Amino acid sequence: MGKAIILLSGGLDSGTCAAIAKAADHDIIALSFDYGSRHSKEIDNARRIVQHLGIQEHIIMPLALGKFGGSSLVDESMKLGDGEEIPNTYVPARNTVFLSIALALAEARGADVIYIGANAVDYSGYPDCRPEFIKAFEETGRLGTKRGVEGNPIKILAPLISMTKAEIIKQGKSLDFPYELTWSCYAGGELACGKCDSCLLRLKGFKEAGFDDPIEYE
Amino acid sequence: MGKAIILLSGGLDSGTCAAIAKAADHDIIALSFDYGSRHSKEIDNARRIVQHLGIQEHIIMPLALGKFGGSSLVDESMKLGDGEEIPNTYVPARNTVFLSIALALAEARGADVIYIGANAVDYSGYPDCRPEFIKAFEETGRLGTKRGVEGNPIKILAPLISMTKAEIIKQGKSLDFPYELTWSCYAGGELACGKCDSCLLRLKGFKEAGFDDPIEYE
Repeated sequence: MGKAIILLSGGLDSGTCAAIAKAADHDIIALSFDYGSRHSKEIDNARRIVQHLGIQEHIIMPLALGKFGGSSLVDESMKLGDGEEIPNTYVPARNTVFLSIALALAEARGADVIYIGANAVDYSGYPDCRPEFIKAFEETGRLGTKRGVEGNPIKILAPLISMTKAEIIKQGKSLDFPYELTWSCYAGGELACGKCDSCLLRLKGFKEAGFDDPIEYE
Repeated sequence: MGKAIILLSGGLDSGTCAAIAKAADHDIIALSFDYGSRHSKEIDNARRIVQHLGIQEHIIMPLALGKFGGSSLVDESMKLGDGEEIPNTYVPARNTVFLSIALALAEARGADVIYIGANAVDYSGYPDCRPEFIKAFEETGRLGTKRGVEGNPIKILAPLISMTKAEIIKQGKSLDFPYELTWSCYAGGELACGKCDSCLLRLKGFKEAGFDDPIEYE
């Protein structure tokens, strides 16, 4: 199936997405970012997912987006999750940045596809998790790379984009993906808080899917 | 004129572009990348340009694209400038990466425009220096940011995109921009080599513009 880049945060969505890419028999390079987020704990989870799935190469890229500010997820002075239409956990242009670096890596290493665990349903509100954004990015990548110009553009796959959280969990379970390796909480404590938007969505997803969430909560 | 981000490598094009942005009376944040290129000497030039133009904030972002390989500009094991249609100095998806980080910075800091010194005429061959790429990126940015979704997208300006090198130099000269602050050579020596593609284009541009190039050559 050729080489694939997978954007792997260590969360539930990207973990499931990695399991899907692995099941499709790609030769995988996992790419994680250390961008000064509150939940950088996720990177340890990304490492454990890489190990569990037998992914051979894992690139962890330091990326100082936290210095820019503008999000409660990277700026400790902002309160988590104020209730606007787009939550303040939105990190400015995050998926554009992550996909662009994945694109550079894909072209440098000859990968044909990039997997991203973006999800527009249960995580609505983030503009860069919508199908129209993914499509526009793919077109930008086609126009802005040597490979694209030569007629062999890199594909962006977002297999979870139209799934509910429960559907994502069912899909992962069908692939025997161990969700105890994933981390979703935004609060950055030792155990998941069970109260932030991300924990609530996760718990709701497990409930609807009919499985127990294997991680511990405070 | 509001706040602007300027992508500033320290080369002739981005220096001229910074002078144009400054003349348009923007409040400017300059953004440079230390990405392991052979000509990282350019960053010192970027600093001097920032100082000369009186730009108040300069962010220099480490970005380990060099680790990915795939370009003679970041990979010392490749020979500079093999003569293909797209030169091997092309860095995979570089402008996509640079623009995406500029987009994140612009949204975090409330800037309305991003200036990029991309040029499609005398630097042909790089796919990510073409107007259609810039336009596609702008659209991706509109779809992938909170501001874009809210109807106030960030503009990408590439004022040099259709100019010849000579026209760029004339424009800079009309703004009294001191080209001795810029660096173009790819070879990474103490003085410019005068032989690489980039030096040759620069020298040709000065000749056609009717000015002397103020930098020293080997």
